[in-house]
Amino acid sequence: MKLNIALLAGDGIGPEVIDQAVKVSNAVAKKFNHEITWTAGITGAAAIDEVGEPYPDSTHEICMAADAVLFGAIGHPRFDNDPKATVRPEQGLLKMRQKLGLFANVRPTFTFPSLIDNSPLKRERIEGTDLIILRELTGGIYFGERGRKDDGNTAFDTCTYTRAEVQRLAKLGFEMAMTRSKRLCCVDKANVLETSRLWRETVQDMEKDFPEVTVSYEFVDAVAMRLVQWPNSYDVLITENLFGDILTDEASVISGSMGLMPSASIGVHTSLFEPIHGSYPQAAGKDIANPLATVLSAAMMFEDAFGLKEEAELIREVVNKSLAEGIVTEDLAGKNKAYKTSEVGDWLAKNI
Amino acid sequence: MKLNIALLAGDGIGPEVIDQAVKVSNAVAKKFNHEITWTAGITGAAAIDEVGEPYPDSTHEICMAADAVLFGAIGHPRFDNDPKATVRPEQGLLKMRQKLGLFANVRPTFTFPSLIDNSPLKRERIEGTDLIILRELTGGIYFGERGRKDDGNTAFDTCTYTRAEVQRLAKLGFEMAMTRSKRLCCVDKANVLETSRLWRETVQDMEKDFPEVTVSYEFVDAVAMRLVQWPNSYDVLITENLFGDILTDEASVISGSMGLMPSASIGVHTSLFEPIHGSYPQAAGKDIANPLATVLSAAMMFEDAFGLKEEAELIREVVNKSLAEGIVTEDLAGKNKAYKTSEVGDWLAKNI
Ligand SMILES: CC(C)[C@H](C(=O)O)[C@@H](O)C(=O)O
Ligand SMILES: CC(C)[C@H](C(=O)O)[C@@H](O)C(=O)O
Repeated sequence: MKLNIALLAGDGIGPEVIDQAVKVSNAVAKKFNHEITWTAGITGAAAIDEVGEPYPDSTHEICMAADAVLFGAIGHPRFDNDPKATVRPEQGLLKMRQKLGLFANVRPTFTFPSLIDNSPLKRERIEGTDLIILRELTGGIYFGERGRKDDGNTAFDTCTYTRAEVQRLAKLGFEMAMTRSKRLCCVDKANVLETSRLWRETVQDMEKDFPEVTVSYEFVDAVAMRLVQWPNSYDVLITENLFGDILTDEASVISGSMGLMPSASIGVHTSLFEPIHGSYPQAAGKDIANPLATVLSAAMMFEDAFGLKEEAELIREVVNKSLAEGIVTEDLAGKNKAYKTSEVGDWLAKNI
Repeated sequence: MKLNIALLAGDGIGPEVIDQAVKVSNAVAKKFNHEITWTAGITGAAAIDEVGEPYPDSTHEICMAADAVLFGAIGHPRFDNDPKATVRPEQGLLKMRQKLGLFANVRPTFTFPSLIDNSPLKRERIEGTDLIILRELTGGIYFGERGRKDDGNTAFDTCTYTRAEVQRLAKLGFEMAMTRSKRLCCVDKANVLETSRLWRETVQDMEKDFPEVTVSYEFVDAVAMRLVQWPNSYDVLITENLFGDILTDEASVISGSMGLMPSASIGVHTSLFEPIHGSYPQAAGKDIANPLATVLSAAMMFEDAFGLKEEAELIREVVNKSLAEGIVTEDLAGKNKAYKTSEVGDWLAKNI
């Protein structure tokens, strides 16, 4: 099979972790006789430095021409504390999501038995956790009208949702629930927000099309609590963009394996796969960052974008083996030897 | 001293837990020679049933005439799954906050050494946690324009903040930090939202007025993570209304003592004190709910609204004694005898 993949390394540790995913993917391609064409594009702070904007048209064209996008991370602290900066790396992320129509961010949170003691939660709370948060990614307050009035002394942001946007995301959620435990939780703030009432009403109307799925409706503040208390009580959760931003990050740390969590963003034009950790600038260039989340994102890509399930499974097996044998970066090494990012990548590729 | 207190018991377990706080407050008043006048008002689902609205004018007048308000909880599940309901208990809460100008919700999260093992977090993560979240309570997306367009198929909500609103809340935060460890964290989403950029810029401008306070700026998604990972790394956090809603609830469960956490809402016209737990309808009328958060809210009231520090301290001491001696409701009893809500209240009042 010919696989056309756009490769966006991005900022911070992005390039290093992406390198390892490329090695592993190439090893898989070799083994299964696929031919991968990687086409690199610039994004984020790196792209701002080079061409003055974080998601240039040239990069967009590369993504549009590809069958899938493998993405590292973007963001740089030099922009964070300057509220007046007009060009920011994150704008690239948002522009990319919008232009590629990446409407659904799929974020699994699960545990690795060997890593369960890394969780900040007690074992009995986290054990058995296997949930997916489906975050709407191209609507809501991220993309509504915003601005200043009154000499800059009043600021506003607008959150907007259409019924069609909710349906599109919720449909994925129902379908995903059907392949799992058939439980779906719609997370909103319907006791306050009109957009949330539209979400709830739309999902309620869709229940009849998926009679086997049991749907619950919970307020975002309650979910923020229960994710810490009983994460293993959840299966599939669907929610709007901003709530999803907060809850997926909260969920990512409860497993204690944040450096291992992959994600997919399902799009109208293509799909994008990325680790959920950020650009972690403090570690950039040190060859110490954990590449496993990116490698597992590549596994998701093989399975979801190309239907190559066996290939994906092999990657996951080799990752498990590296964990079992302690071929891990410093964040997971504890008192044992810590391997470099590149060493972990080499080991994985060799073991494919 | 004469203490004029408005008493809003509300829904669910509200009336039961409020009763205990009244007993304890009366015992304190007797001991210290104060004269409390309690004036009861209706709110929430109870008020909807009686007069058709959740925060009637008569109740507002009671609050305005009082020196402080002691509040139980409101909310009833019969309204939750009906997105088309036009009158909701929560509207009462919002109307009350707005009409009383309760602009700052003060939410401490701390641990009780004897209860630390109730936390879902591992001991080493939660030990030493003592933080305060200051949530803006009368602005933002809770009170902006909202509605439907396009035959009901498009919904919108607007988040608005003025510089003056941010300054008012931030000033409290700086002052509070000065009485504690002098660390303040401003929580926002300045990489996306214009209102957040106004928050960040306003707080940055205020730094020079409080040169001793060290201010950090963190994104709400990052805080949602760190609250689970290292809650004891925070001191005072300030944030806008919706982020505060989510983060205060998340913070409330990490201590494992949610049933014990009090809160204060500081207002333009008066201040209001309430437990942070909700109306917990499943337990209503069973005399099993934990009254300690409400009793500790009364302690906050003595101290913050009336400057009666000694009285507040005595309440806290007696609460600690009840915990040490196991005079607790079923949520805290473990394998030991569980006391009724009213029994705990009687014991506390007797021991004042
Ligand atoms: C960087 C930021 C704009 C982004 C978001 O809020 O969506 C990030 O937090 C994420 O979750 O991918
Ligand atoms: C009931 C609801 C409107 C309210 C809020 O969101 O403010 C509650 O969650 C709270 O935090 O007091």
